[in-house]
Amino acid sequence: MSVFTTVTAEDLGPFLKRYSIGSLLELKGIAAGITNTNYFVTTTHGRYVLTLFENLAADELPFYVNLMAHLAHHGIAVAAPIANLDDQYVDVLNGRPTLLVQCVPGTVVDEPNATQCAEVGEMLAQMHLAARSYRGQMSNPRGADWWNVTAPQLFDLMDKADAEQLRAELSLQAEHHFDGLPQGVIHADLFRDNVLLNGDHVGGFIDFYYACNDTLLYDLAITLNDWCVTESGDIDSERASALLQGYQAVRTLQADEIAAWPVLLRAAALRFWVSRLYDFHKPAAGEMTFAKDPLHFQRVISAHAERQDFWL
Amino acid sequence: MSVFTTVTAEDLGPFLKRYSIGSLLELKGIAAGITNTNYFVTTTHGRYVLTLFENLAADELPFYVNLMAHLAHHGIAVAAPIANLDDQYVDVLNGRPTLLVQCVPGTVVDEPNATQCAEVGEMLAQMHLAARSYRGQMSNPRGADWWNVTAPQLFDLMDKADAEQLRAELSLQAEHHFDGLPQGVIHADLFRDNVLLNGDHVGGFIDFYYACNDTLLYDLAITLNDWCVTESGDIDSERASALLQGYQAVRTLQADEIAAWPVLLRAAALRFWVSRLYDFHKPAAGEMTFAKDPLHFQRVISAHAERQDFWL
Repeated sequence: MSVFTTVTAEDLGPFLKRYSIGSLLELKGIAAGITNTNYFVTTTHGRYVLTLFENLAADELPFYVNLMAHLAHHGIAVAAPIANLDDQYVDVLNGRPTLLVQCVPGTVVDEPNATQCAEVGEMLAQMHLAARSYRGQMSNPRGADWWNVTAPQLFDLMDKADAEQLRAELSLQAEHHFDGLPQGVIHADLFRDNVLLNGDHVGGFIDFYYACNDTLLYDLAITLNDWCVTESGDIDSERASALLQGYQAVRTLQADEIAAWPVLLRAAALRFWVSRLYDFHKPAAGEMTFAKDPLHFQRVISAHAERQDFWL
Repeated sequence: MSVFTTVTAEDLGPFLKRYSIGSLLELKGIAAGITNTNYFVTTTHGRYVLTLFENLAADELPFYVNLMAHLAHHGIAVAAPIANLDDQYVDVLNGRPTLLVQCVPGTVVDEPNATQCAEVGEMLAQMHLAARSYRGQMSNPRGADWWNVTAPQLFDLMDKADAEQLRAELSLQAEHHFDGLPQGVIHADLFRDNVLLNGDHVGGFIDFYYACNDTLLYDLAITLNDWCVTESGDIDSERASALLQGYQAVRTLQADEIAAWPVLLRAAALRFWVSRLYDFHKPAAGEMTFAKDPLHFQRVISAHAERQDFWL
């Protein structure tokens, strides 16, 4: 569950008086999510999500929160942050920095169809364009610098053949640099559970707490590696084509992006292979383990390495 | 009708490429409104209203547009403006400054009930609080300075008894000043046709183009004079009480506001009596006449003058 800090209706009454969203009707913990505490807050004006940040400090939040507000102003389907009467998005409740956002319509879809993938691709491209005028800057905390430091801590804990494959992937990526490709703000974690779909339409992208400045196409690769991959780690060509067509209907890829695409797909899988390996082999002391299967992204890398039809 | 400047789907295609709201599905002129051109714009992402400003120049718009954005960020039910890829709310189409806003849910209600009046009062008070942190400044173009210059141009065109009543009201108001009461940003035109109701709930306040800095309670008086007044100009006490209770549930009136209330109610009626008299007697040359009955607000003033139970 994801309620780490308990909030009661009694706590929320005075808190809501610092906002313009009416008075409390219902308060309900949200089970999804593993990092922050989330509640549905229903008031006389509507439905909101209240997040209490368990790890991020208040001074780390402006990049993410102002980005969400910026995207919402541009009509991107994201949960729009609500400012309090002091004109601040970030407030404090029960000792935690907080954010109130408008509820976005839709639900998480576990088995998306090609139309939904196309819509996600289209909205992702719109997001990349809309974020061009965003002034915040955040380096990627899970980029090449991070995996080059993290992976060597894992070699000895892995099967020999797996460690060999990981070393090979790190070497492959070390030969490539993507900073000459179009850069911008990326979501960096646009998995199925971070998109609410309303029928076939995108109701909202959520959970922007890995967003950063990086290669735009890397964001699309991360997205493809989740939305267009089967449980066994195979690529679903129909969904992959749909995602790419949706994206390119808004932003056509350049020749250098198309050339980099096969290696970027493996970079995007490598990032999650390494983080899942790390969570699996080195779970934080005293924390419950939510470690996901690291093998999955190893298989995705293998699938990309074997295929040459990169849906472009 | 209110389409003064025609917009075609061909005009809108390149215009929408400057935004992140998807591609055009439907374009439809809106009949309501007498000042600006308005269209419903339905895209692959949702439904929007496009306004082409026929009188306001682009440099007059920031106060209104930024106010709407500010209120939307605070969760006030208003149509949120959409920024273009240059991060600007105001763009240009067919020679007119434009604004795209998100569609708000609801319809205009001609015969509101007491519950709806209470909800409007509550949202108005929330709006007054949320606007405290708004930095824009705009003086009221229809304040006492305006009516003291305008009314004397009308005396000779009016029935002698009516002119006498108008003179008496001007004298009464000249004896009172409200700048010691709580000031702030007011809507200043929150008639029934500027509120979309979604059942009993406020879907959105619209048409902020008379908004200005003035006495908060004057805004409530303008609102009461429309929402809680019958066709014959009588005050509906039940609706008036509901409006005031809704407002005071959020912002309790001070003693000096309560003392000023009877005269403010007459000031709010005077403003519209004078503007309607002016539109009736001095219609702008070449313009179609939309003049509304000036007598209505004369009757409202009389009703207020006769009553002493001011629903407080």
